[in-house]
Amino acid sequence: MARLVVIGGGAAGMSAASAARRTDPNLEIVVAEATGYASWGLCGIPYYIAGTVHDHEDLISIRPERFREERRIDLRLHTAATGIDPTDRTVRLRTPDGESTLTYDRLVIAAGASPVVPPLPGVDHERVFVIRAMEEVIRLRRLIDAGQVRRCVVVGAGYIGLEMADALVERDCSVTVVEMLERVMTNLDPSMSSLVEQVVHRHVDLLLSSGLVSMSAGDDGLVCTLGDGRRVDADAVVLAVGVQPTSTIAARAGAEMTTKGALVVDGHMRTTLPGVFAAGDVIAAPHRLLAEPTFVPLAPTANKTGRVAGTVAAGGEARFEGIVGTAVAKVFELTVARTGLTLAEATDAGLEAMATNTRAASRARYYPGTKPTDTRLVYRGDGRLLGAQMVSEDPAAAKRIDVVAAALHGGFGVTDLADLDLSYAPPYAPVYDPLLRVAHAAARDLKSAD
Amino acid sequence: MARLVVIGGGAAGMSAASAARRTDPNLEIVVAEATGYASWGLCGIPYYIAGTVHDHEDLISIRPERFREERRIDLRLHTAATGIDPTDRTVRLRTPDGESTLTYDRLVIAAGASPVVPPLPGVDHERVFVIRAMEEVIRLRRLIDAGQVRRCVVVGAGYIGLEMADALVERDCSVTVVEMLERVMTNLDPSMSSLVEQVVHRHVDLLLSSGLVSMSAGDDGLVCTLGDGRRVDADAVVLAVGVQPTSTIAARAGAEMTTKGALVVDGHMRTTLPGVFAAGDVIAAPHRLLAEPTFVPLAPTANKTGRVAGTVAAGGEARFEGIVGTAVAKVFELTVARTGLTLAEATDAGLEAMATNTRAASRARYYPGTKPTDTRLVYRGDGRLLGAQMVSEDPAAAKRIDVVAAALHGGFGVTDLADLDLSYAPPYAPVYDPLLRVAHAAARDLKSAD
Repeated sequence: MARLVVIGGGAAGMSAASAARRTDPNLEIVVAEATGYASWGLCGIPYYIAGTVHDHEDLISIRPERFREERRIDLRLHTAATGIDPTDRTVRLRTPDGESTLTYDRLVIAAGASPVVPPLPGVDHERVFVIRAMEEVIRLRRLIDAGQVRRCVVVGAGYIGLEMADALVERDCSVTVVEMLERVMTNLDPSMSSLVEQVVHRHVDLLLSSGLVSMSAGDDGLVCTLGDGRRVDADAVVLAVGVQPTSTIAARAGAEMTTKGALVVDGHMRTTLPGVFAAGDVIAAPHRLLAEPTFVPLAPTANKTGRVAGTVAAGGEARFEGIVGTAVAKVFELTVARTGLTLAEATDAGLEAMATNTRAASRARYYPGTKPTDTRLVYRGDGRLLGAQMVSEDPAAAKRIDVVAAALHGGFGVTDLADLDLSYAPPYAPVYDPLLRVAHAAARDLKSAD
Repeated sequence: MARLVVIGGGAAGMSAASAARRTDPNLEIVVAEATGYASWGLCGIPYYIAGTVHDHEDLISIRPERFREERRIDLRLHTAATGIDPTDRTVRLRTPDGESTLTYDRLVIAAGASPVVPPLPGVDHERVFVIRAMEEVIRLRRLIDAGQVRRCVVVGAGYIGLEMADALVERDCSVTVVEMLERVMTNLDPSMSSLVEQVVHRHVDLLLSSGLVSMSAGDDGLVCTLGDGRRVDADAVVLAVGVQPTSTIAARAGAEMTTKGALVVDGHMRTTLPGVFAAGDVIAAPHRLLAEPTFVPLAPTANKTGRVAGTVAAGGEARFEGIVGTAVAKVFELTVARTGLTLAEATDAGLEAMATNTRAASRARYYPGTKPTDTRLVYRGDGRLLGAQMVSEDPAAAKRIDVVAAALHGGFGVTDLADLDLSYAPPYAPVYDPLLRVAHAAARDLKSAD
């Protein structure tokens, strides 16, 4: 009987294992997961910290017993993969009981991404948290529940840092956000991130262009020292300065990777090593608007690429058609969404791009709950759409951005977007949806640019 | 100086007049509006009745003075067009002061649609309302405000009837909905309308397969007699049994129309009469999925076709690219949305179609506010999408349907929909959006049908 080994029991790994089981009922499937938890929603962490999600068990999509019993997947927790030998087709595993070697016919690397931990003095202090392993998240939540965290420093003002800041404010913590760059959410163009910034300033002490240089135990918690000498006291520090692919063992085995260390895969999730597939946050995903694959570690891509990897590894047919860079986050009262390329990303990719911003009502003007919706449309000189960004207090922005995601898949131009027959009723949209407004404005800008 | 006359001051007429002004600053523009109100949101009526919208003035998008002063549009209220002579290029107008004739160089007919008023005994009673003219809506609202409407009969369980029923329940009225057909919302397939029906039953007394045969003044309000002899007492009766194009004067002038009496236009909104355009609820709109134009009287199409008619009538260039049949309504706690064709509509149009239904969570399972979202996808045997219907307590269904609307514009297949890179974060969607779920299920159904 052939054996599939999957490294990593997160979204990608468990999707791969499940898809492999659906494809081949006879395959032996082993999943090695380093931590004590599998198939849980990393993206739910801020809501668990906030208390919106009561129990950490609620974040688990499918329980280990179900994988084992219903899907006959040999899910091994507390089992770290420490090396691969692609010639012998073996994986070295380490458990609390010792080391062992397991042979495979097919291997799926779904080891995910790891938080970047800056090598700063004091970073190993028990009140410094990197948000990735469930165990650490539970420990932080318990401290908060026990009333031991009143002052927090969050390092990093990307979407994870801001979601965590939002959660900590929800728990009545006094929060300082320290960001090295001069603005928040650099995955948006400045005209849009500045809208987010205004709201963040209302809720936390936001220190931009500021670096954390050290943390040390003080009389009362931690003392964080910033680059300008300023000191901030904190009961807890949350590091959210980014993640990197957990690709070391694949690299040592000789798999090709991008300059950022993400594994290179084809549309079937094959790495450059024979019989070895990869999926999830460890890969650079094919991008429908860019020639180069990109490292965009997000759950939908992890699930989809996991499914493709597992299906193909088990002998089935599947193909991942690529991302367009869609993402959404709740940042305090705002919904912040993007798809495609920002103007900066388009320019970096060598595309000649233009952008148009509009502010429009989210619903009929007279209907309660209508909110201004800021939209930025990015497009080429010939009108072809490249991307969009939306910031609004109306959560409908999350699914509005999906309309543009569909438009990008379809290769639509600005006027195609303006021609869409979008739904209207006063509780949901104005008669001209914000997307139609921005498309009309972009069409005018294109005409004047002629 | 050339003169453009517009018949009708609703969404289409005022859009036409405004677009004409933008296109030609020198054109003389006259708008004849039969009622005392122009440019107001018909779709807002249920929310005004419900009291969600406080003042009827809030429903007016742009005030008459602004049209007159800022846009130099000669907007004449209480001015009904009673006839057109396309040979002499004249319109006959009737005001409270008498009749007159006005010549035109270009004419835009934007007379809208009129409620169907069944010729039943008692239909002229002052407590019987057809919901179209602002004056009548204000009168109903005043009666409710004065506490004089406690029991209501709504005739018709299409979206307008149900929106009105919702509004009247909101005002603590006891509501009976009488529907001739055997189900509510026949613009959905039965598997979806039955979901709506279950919710409607919770709020009102819903009598299906029931016809109203007469209304008469009783000791205490009106007595409505149904086909089966049953009697229902009411303080007010709201008729919502559909609308028909207000095309009589165009018909008398010889304009071509569909069997349902809607004016036939080309993509530039030209009727078959020289120099005469039409827009809004009076036309049959080009449909991107059907060979025949269709009568779908909705505000976005009225605005868009008005803009095209006004632009072209004033000598500019514009084209209406067609509808796909997108619509959404709030029905009590439900959001009910559709786009494209239902299975019944597809079959009627001679298309070989299939459909797949799924129920999926609207957000991350563990996030508060997640609701089941029922989705029905309609597609051809070769996988090409034909339409979708959604019913959910989560309002995100309104903008989710727009993703399918975009997919229809793009000619996507089921697998294209499944491949979309849609936004995900726990407050907004599950990792596989309901649209991806239904697309996956449809792809499986297509495979089994092979």
